[in-house]
Amino acid sequence: MDLDVFNKHESNVRGYVRSFPKVFERAEGPIIYDQKGAPYIDFFSGAGGLNYGHNQPALTAGMIDYLQNGGIIHGLDMATAAKKRFIVAFQTYILKPRKLSYKMQFTGPTGTNAVEAALKLARLNTGRTGIIAFTHAFHGVSLGSLATTANSWYRKAAGTDLHGTTFLPYDGFVEGLDSIAYFEQILTDPGSGQSLPAAVIVECVQGEGGVNVASDVWLQRLRAVTKKHGIILIVDEIQAGCGRTGEFFSFEQSGIVPDMVTVSKSISASGLPMALLLIAPKLDIWKPGQHNGTFRGNNLAFVSAAVAIETFWKTGVLSKQVHRKSAIIHAALSDIASSYPKLKLQVVGRGMIQGLRCDIDHGFAKRISKAAFSKGLIIETAGSYDEVLKLLPALIIDDKTLQKGLDIVKAAAKKAA
Amino acid sequence: MDLDVFNKHESNVRGYVRSFPKVFERAEGPIIYDQKGAPYIDFFSGAGGLNYGHNQPALTAGMIDYLQNGGIIHGLDMATAAKKRFIVAFQTYILKPRKLSYKMQFTGPTGTNAVEAALKLARLNTGRTGIIAFTHAFHGVSLGSLATTANSWYRKAAGTDLHGTTFLPYDGFVEGLDSIAYFEQILTDPGSGQSLPAAVIVECVQGEGGVNVASDVWLQRLRAVTKKHGIILIVDEIQAGCGRTGEFFSFEQSGIVPDMVTVSKSISASGLPMALLLIAPKLDIWKPGQHNGTFRGNNLAFVSAAVAIETFWKTGVLSKQVHRKSAIIHAALSDIASSYPKLKLQVVGRGMIQGLRCDIDHGFAKRISKAAFSKGLIIETAGSYDEVLKLLPALIIDDKTLQKGLDIVKAAAKKAA
Amino acid sequence: MDLDVFNKHESNVRGYVRSFPKVFERAEGPIIYDQKGAPYIDFFSGAGGLNYGHNQPALTAGMIDYLQNGGIIHGLDMATAAKKRFIVAFQTYILKPRKLSYKMQFTGPTGTNAVEAALKLARLNTGRTGIIAFTHAFHGVSLGSLATTANSWYRKAAGTDLHGTTFLPYDGFVEGLDSIAYFEQILTDPGSGQSLPAAVIVECVQGEGGVNVASDVWLQRLRAVTKKHGIILIVDEIQAGCGRTGEFFSFEQSGIVPDMVTVSKSISASGLPMALLLIAPKLDIWKPGQHNGTFRGNNLAFVSAAVAIETFWKTGVLSKQVHRKSAIIHAALSDIASSYPKLKLQVVGRGMIQGLRCDIDHGFAKRISKAAFSKGLIIETAGSYDEVLKLLPALIIDDKTLQKGLDIVKAAAKKAA
Amino acid sequence: MDLDVFNKHESNVRGYVRSFPKVFERAEGPIIYDQKGAPYIDFFSGAGGLNYGHNQPALTAGMIDYLQNGGIIHGLDMATAAKKRFIVAFQTYILKPRKLSYKMQFTGPTGTNAVEAALKLARLNTGRTGIIAFTHAFHGVSLGSLATTANSWYRKAAGTDLHGTTFLPYDGFVEGLDSIAYFEQILTDPGSGQSLPAAVIVECVQGEGGVNVASDVWLQRLRAVTKKHGIILIVDEIQAGCGRTGEFFSFEQSGIVPDMVTVSKSISASGLPMALLLIAPKLDIWKPGQHNGTFRGNNLAFVSAAVAIETFWKTGVLSKQVHRKSAIIHAALSDIASSYPKLKLQVVGRGMIQGLRCDIDHGFAKRISKAAFSKGLIIETAGSYDEVLKLLPALIIDDKTLQKGLDIVKAAAKKAA
Repeated sequence: MDLDVFNKHESNVRGYVRSFPKVFERAEGPIIYDQKGAPYIDFFSGAGGLNYGHNQPALTAGMIDYLQNGGIIHGLDMATAAKKRFIVAFQTYILKPRKLSYKMQFTGPTGTNAVEAALKLARLNTGRTGIIAFTHAFHGVSLGSLATTANSWYRKAAGTDLHGTTFLPYDGFVEGLDSIAYFEQILTDPGSGQSLPAAVIVECVQGEGGVNVASDVWLQRLRAVTKKHGIILIVDEIQAGCGRTGEFFSFEQSGIVPDMVTVSKSISASGLPMALLLIAPKLDIWKPGQHNGTFRGNNLAFVSAAVAIETFWKTGVLSKQVHRKSAIIHAALSDIASSYPKLKLQVVGRGMIQGLRCDIDHGFAKRISKAAFSKGLIIETAGSYDEVLKLLPALIIDDKTLQKGLDIVKAAAKKAA
Repeated sequence: MDLDVFNKHESNVRGYVRSFPKVFERAEGPIIYDQKGAPYIDFFSGAGGLNYGHNQPALTAGMIDYLQNGGIIHGLDMATAAKKRFIVAFQTYILKPRKLSYKMQFTGPTGTNAVEAALKLARLNTGRTGIIAFTHAFHGVSLGSLATTANSWYRKAAGTDLHGTTFLPYDGFVEGLDSIAYFEQILTDPGSGQSLPAAVIVECVQGEGGVNVASDVWLQRLRAVTKKHGIILIVDEIQAGCGRTGEFFSFEQSGIVPDMVTVSKSISASGLPMALLLIAPKLDIWKPGQHNGTFRGNNLAFVSAAVAIETFWKTGVLSKQVHRKSAIIHAALSDIASSYPKLKLQVVGRGMIQGLRCDIDHGFAKRISKAAFSKGLIIETAGSYDEVLKLLPALIIDDKTLQKGLDIVKAAAKKAA
Repeated sequence: MDLDVFNKHESNVRGYVRSFPKVFERAEGPIIYDQKGAPYIDFFSGAGGLNYGHNQPALTAGMIDYLQNGGIIHGLDMATAAKKRFIVAFQTYILKPRKLSYKMQFTGPTGTNAVEAALKLARLNTGRTGIIAFTHAFHGVSLGSLATTANSWYRKAAGTDLHGTTFLPYDGFVEGLDSIAYFEQILTDPGSGQSLPAAVIVECVQGEGGVNVASDVWLQRLRAVTKKHGIILIVDEIQAGCGRTGEFFSFEQSGIVPDMVTVSKSISASGLPMALLLIAPKLDIWKPGQHNGTFRGNNLAFVSAAVAIETFWKTGVLSKQVHRKSAIIHAALSDIASSYPKLKLQVVGRGMIQGLRCDIDHGFAKRISKAAFSKGLIIETAGSYDEVLKLLPALIIDDKTLQKGLDIVKAAAKKAA
Repeated sequence: MDLDVFNKHESNVRGYVRSFPKVFERAEGPIIYDQKGAPYIDFFSGAGGLNYGHNQPALTAGMIDYLQNGGIIHGLDMATAAKKRFIVAFQTYILKPRKLSYKMQFTGPTGTNAVEAALKLARLNTGRTGIIAFTHAFHGVSLGSLATTANSWYRKAAGTDLHGTTFLPYDGFVEGLDSIAYFEQILTDPGSGQSLPAAVIVECVQGEGGVNVASDVWLQRLRAVTKKHGIILIVDEIQAGCGRTGEFFSFEQSGIVPDMVTVSKSISASGLPMALLLIAPKLDIWKPGQHNGTFRGNNLAFVSAAVAIETFWKTGVLSKQVHRKSAIIHAALSDIASSYPKLKLQVVGRGMIQGLRCDIDHGFAKRISKAAFSKGLIIETAGSYDEVLKLLPALIIDDKTLQKGLDIVKAAAKKAA
């Protein structure tokens, strides 16, 4: 069998290979091909790591060129021409136009590493240790990040107690509760059991947690409360950032300015590992080398990352496209939702991270995912019970392929209902 | 100034750029070039991430070919042709000939992530939480790994207490103490304060800690004690593995068989991020997806990793070369050591990770490093006080360049003495 | 000055001596006398440790008799005649009539020690470590108990992080929030960040926390949720128990049956240190001596404790008296409250633990306390801001003294308003 | 059966009642009587809580007198005449003659509470959290103290991980290891994994741990190292203090001056619960009430404690007696040891805390204890394996009774051998 090698030699921890049991080989834009050449529309996009699609020509060209010219691939945290190009592009086309001022830390090239760095730095800055995270949050599975990840599936895998995080209800988690008012109440009442935390870490859209969206007002109030009490606000843009919601950062729409921002997944644009921590300049109290890592200088990723910014973010074209396609997705999902009133489906999400939630039949989303795969679509589920079908098409997906994918979702929903 | 962009926009945490303040651009084998074309012999090799040198032609060709053919770059943990090729190569040419049987876990592509996974899995297997690590150990800086990293510089950066690790004296740390006997004494005396740990994590050669070498007998006794008491033995091969000591694994020489092995740095061979946890099959009790990460399927790295194994590990040629060059390095360092009897220099290390330790003048190694850089050699220091000059040339370095590098070290030592 | 010896030699940690700066010498029932013979009505009763007043004649007689006959004072946890008498009295007159079945653990003779034992035993029984406590809870200041104590004043004094407790809103803490529903929501949603806890610890009336009362329905629902999810329910009766609310246990009125009950303060009845943990028989999985302590066999306390039960709890007379006097207290406080509408005073509490809360002028209660002391009444404050005047008269206080005390409170309130 | 009530109603945690299964009733000096009037010589003395024997006439008289005069029993931490008398006596007869200057903190009346207070205060003073304790240490079982208690029997009962303590080898624990030099090595090497601790806590004679004695030189070096590095030295005098080793404090002989001293057990002299933390004045940074507890003002204990100091410590008579009897005990134990060369018995201990250790037959001591009890002697065992017979007779035991007890030990040893 095709998967024998994996079944025999790879750890039981392997996951997606079980949902999509094919051996994949090539990929192009929004399509991925298995070894036998069968195409699959990719509505998962590397869990958000491939916002620009697979093998975007400009990026591939840039990387091949770099390799052919003997460019440095591995640079630790030394200065390189590739890194310089990326820094300049990021400052010029991303931060400056948004009037944002951040120091850039190249952490180990994974999202969880950027989160670990942010948590450390928040603690060092405040001399405090407590972190506030939210229900349904996902920030990674290395021990520091894992303490802020809400899902018990991952938490139990720690094999040890996870300390130092208080989970508060995310926007909308408890019906009728003003969770920001509650947060402020426990902050200010000396008898609440809650000490002043070092930081709050939050996703504007919770990807893994079930495509939950925090309202702009909620984010603005969170920013106000944290500012008032001297708490560092970390926005985790790992899944929702890099254009996924339309703007480069998912927090832009709300107008807040976080103290730190974690960026990863699609920042390299090519699918290569890369991660970034953005730090408000006054908080950049790191001493040289205090947080290190062998691969924080993945220069091939810097190359593709720089090309992507130069290609897609000089103008507002991509943003407009994302908003336009978001509406298409929303309409398609709404159509499905209205077709099965008994399932009480909810269309959730924002921009091109949207979902279909079914609270009364938790298996519905998984059944769609399975049926869709058999018809050539890769799509995943999210939420505590995998009760949310999550759509993460490439931002650059052409309308025809998008429509084709949505049609498959529709047909699969019919089968799953 | 060349470094303005970095000074202005990059976090203060940047480190090596301060020791080697040039903007680098290209690299080839054992040589790295700055923007102006000035060459530097690389005796640091990406902190051990570039054992096969920079841009090894076979690897580069393989990667370019893969890119040109639209190969999948980002594959989460789905099955891909590139991953299959790597698995088969690793099982065939690395594990099988050494009579080792391990399941392979592709963790997030950094060493610290493999360590995090190992610690979790050890805890899940034993239902215990304590970890034994050793003085001068370095296993990474994400919170779980950091708890097992001995250096206070990194530990203090956590900003919070680090729990669950007991540090024992590494081989030779306390003169006259049999640290394995001590370990067994505290394990067996119910009044020692030491509970039965889940795991012991150890490096056969401590790279960051000062190029300290554990003797074969010490490792064998450690394996015997851990086996006797049902403690999982994790060998961290991140810096010392992938041929650095001559054999593929640094533990081979001692004949021990660890329960888990962490592999990273040079496993991708090309400098791309990649990491692996090897797990004794009976310990592979992971449930699907319990430990995840966006970049655990860095397929471009799988390509270069597979090519490297197929190129360098089908035969024993590379091993022999490493042993031969090790002798050259040892001789050169011994010559320097004997030239400055007052400094009481010690030649330390094994294979092509060797060092020159100076206990009575902690600044000596740093002065050599600085002087060497001005003469075109990149070389770093290690140890609690940076008191050890650490040599990590590419394993494939040609004799002439090696000799040239050693000559620069010699001249720099003269200046520094 | 009288207090010189204390000021000079006693630690700065001393507290009540600052509020009541006299040297006290003798005491009788509800009255305490200073060295010069000046009497003070005691509305504090040893913070709830003297429910039967000072030097209750029957108790004193019993103790003197015991001493004169050479009775064992210190018995570790050996069997003694005095202990036997207490066990029999407690089983016969307290547990049996209430249809309660508990094993009795004589912990070290302080409330916090009983709490420590309860938390340990809950963890051992469940194999889980998390504890749920409530906002404004006070369970002691040794490290295990302190983790469940909400007040930041005490928590900060730990000098280290306190782990393992989640604080939930106590009944009424968040206006409009159904905190039991919220508890069940985070218990059942795998994405809440809340793992299944070992135990919930709760006070039916929070003494230190501000004389907050949990409603019977709230307690019943808490019992239902904990039972449903296999969570151990610990009721802390240290301050509210031993008749303070009218019934022997403060939980009786609600009809719930806790899994464990911590008892201390007035259990010895004489003011001597003593503590007890009541354990549902099936949870009594202690191994011999696992939780020990030198003074768990304070036999002189057993003597007075037995006499008190035999004297006061064979009939319902005391309960009736407490309820009757509670009404008197309530009326007096209501009268004061209605006299100062601008202060929006609230009468809080239950039984003979009542208070006057002033949310808009936090210093009001302290000013009453100070003024009252100058007129011969000892009365303390409680709550996060000391904003609650707390009345804890001896249960056996005669009506005349009670009235006199209440009159002083009234006059002091006038002065303080 | 006599013990039915206990078996039926008391928790399984009960311990000593299993070793000495009688119901005891009266006691006088070194003798304790069961309900039927059978006498037992008490070589256990309430685990060190009855150094002056049971019901010492002067103490009993003082307590009866106090009770008859309506003295305050329970005083929280208010100033009382009884407390004043104790403070003055302690300062005058204990501290002043020894040229010691300490502030006195009356903690909750148990040894573990004094230890909890000491650990907190050490952390608050240093801003650090780590504690150094020693193999075979026993400092109590509430969570903070338990973290510093070495025995796995007690540690496992926590049901949760214990954080923050590093255990170092006590004097003599590892043959041939200079454990103070090792301590200093890990303190000064930044790569040891050991951060600078807040405090070291140590017993000069380890009672529970097996009657192990630290040499004067070892203690002096420990004091020197802690002073040099700004680490607070806490000496736990709970079992070995109050005259047990001849001097009032067990540390006196070595000449060291600790920063804090925990005192409990025999400080009340009557067997009533009481505890004290002595604090170097400059470290007394407590804020009012930060560490509290209902029973920290056990005034009946203050009365007996004051009488004891005035009776026994105005002169050096008691000390001399203790040293004289220590020699008798040592001779008797040495005689037994030499009678059974095959058992390789060791006489251990100092002053009137001595023991007989048998490393090759761990059941030997328990067999002696059992046989002795059947002949009218109460004596306990200690050590990780209960391998040490521990002698703790009252300091004031008359020679005849002492000899009688030693004879029983001798006969029991013969039976047990």
